Amino acid sequence: MKNICLIVEYLGTNYKGFQRQKNGITVQAVLEEAIFNAVGQRVTLTASGRTDAGVHAVGQAVNFFTNCTVPPEKLSIAINFHLPADISVIKSFEVPPKFNARFSAKKKEYVYRICTNKHMSVFEGNRAMHYPYKVDYEVLKCALVKICGTHDFSSFMKTGGQVEDTVRTIYKADYKLDKKGILTLKFVGNGFLYNMVRILVGTVLEISSGKLAVNALDELLKGGRRPLAGKTAPACGLYLNKVWY
Amino acid sequence: MKNICLIVEYLGTNYKGFQRQKNGITVQAVLEEAIFNAVGQRVTLTASGRTDAGVHAVGQAVNFFTNCTVPPEKLSIAINFHLPADISVIKSFEVPPKFNARFSAKKKEYVYRICTNKHMSVFEGNRAMHYPYKVDYEVLKCALVKICGTHDFSSFMKTGGQVEDTVRTIYKADYKLDKKGILTLKFVGNGFLYNMVRILVGTVLEISSGKLAVNALDELLKGGRRPLAGKTAPACGLYLNKVWY
Repeated sequence: MKNICLIVEYLGTNYKGFQRQKNGITVQAVLEEAIFNAVGQRVTLTASGRTDAGVHAVGQAVNFFTNCTVPPEKLSIAINFHLPADISVIKSFEVPPKFNARFSAKKKEYVYRICTNKHMSVFEGNRAMHYPYKVDYEVLKCALVKICGTHDFSSFMKTGGQVEDTVRTIYKADYKLDKKGILTLKFVGNGFLYNMVRILVGTVLEISSGKLAVNALDELLKGGRRPLAGKTAPACGLYLNKVWY
Repeated sequence: MKNICLIVEYLGTNYKGFQRQKNGITVQAVLEEAIFNAVGQRVTLTASGRTDAGVHAVGQAVNFFTNCTVPPEKLSIAINFHLPADISVIKSFEVPPKFNARFSAKKKEYVYRICTNKHMSVFEGNRAMHYPYKVDYEVLKCALVKICGTHDFSSFMKTGGQVEDTVRTIYKADYKLDKKGILTLKFVGNGFLYNMVRILVGTVLEISSGKLAVNALDELLKGGRRPLAGKTAPACGLYLNKVWY
């Protein structure tokens, strides 16, 4: 049996998230079906993490075991042949038997895209959030700096989450504004709680627009203050960009 | 009566081109309906030029006459309220009575987007052409330089075109390759024949991949050699970017 890792890109718009579920089409179900068609074996994928309905991926990592004899690097072509246009395997390769896309992950990078123009760009539909309000980029920078480090991020977790340990480390949180008015926020961390990036984005946007003080972050980063944090930014702006092993 | 100019952005994917026609939904028909809903008057739009089915616009210019009393700059908001997500009015303003979006146009800029990666990016579906072949960028540059200037472009016109004068001037033809593997070709000219940009793109790609010699352009630019030019690149990669008046 070989352990195969795939790096997968998808536009999440038409899917009920990554993880297989009873109702609705998921990325996992479509991917597993394509793998079955390519290698003739039913497999169960392990992913680096779930992504919610409407969330995209540029570099989702998954692994599965197979005794198929196709060279691992050629599997991407065979699988892509059976995939719709909104899911694509970028790369396929063999990994050691112990590799587990979920538990072996060391760091992850998410980006969040925001159209800051007065009119939402027609090319950014389902690919970015629209935020046509004043943003103070100095303040945004301060807020992102504060988020970096090891904190109890439970204020930035969807209530009802079942995780015991809500401490995570954010190594990097920065932004870029391009000429077309697209603001991209980037977060690199050792792990992310449920909806954490989307609530962080909602919160730093409120801070940057003066609806919330930068210092509110000090309180929020002590944990347990979800009602004081910002709104959850919509799924369509979020991209799982990269996973480090 | 006021003469109003609108700068319009649209994703052409769901439309049978700009110009109103009997069968199929067009950008013009949807825009005229939205204007009717916004100002309560039936108008007929004049556009800087038609765009084909599937072709996009970042800066299409149109004009129409109205005696509506809404301040011209506010019309964009009123019209956008009645438009679907894939058409958006970026700007609205009053122009002199003599202004005609078609005949007053002095220069136009088109861009053509190409995904050069082995796998077509899922985010570029309907927004770029996929060309996963070797491209010699030095050769591409030479080809684009040759295209600049005043030439008889009839070799780069869809056969059956009814235009008498096929001489056009290209002021600028260049390219940019970004970090994500998206190659963007830009063309600025005083006018473009039917399918001209798409045939130019198909031709310079064939030249850059060694299927056609750079010198073939010398022959082609003498005119009347359509069969010797490259294939017509697909509509989905083409964007009407800007019109100068």
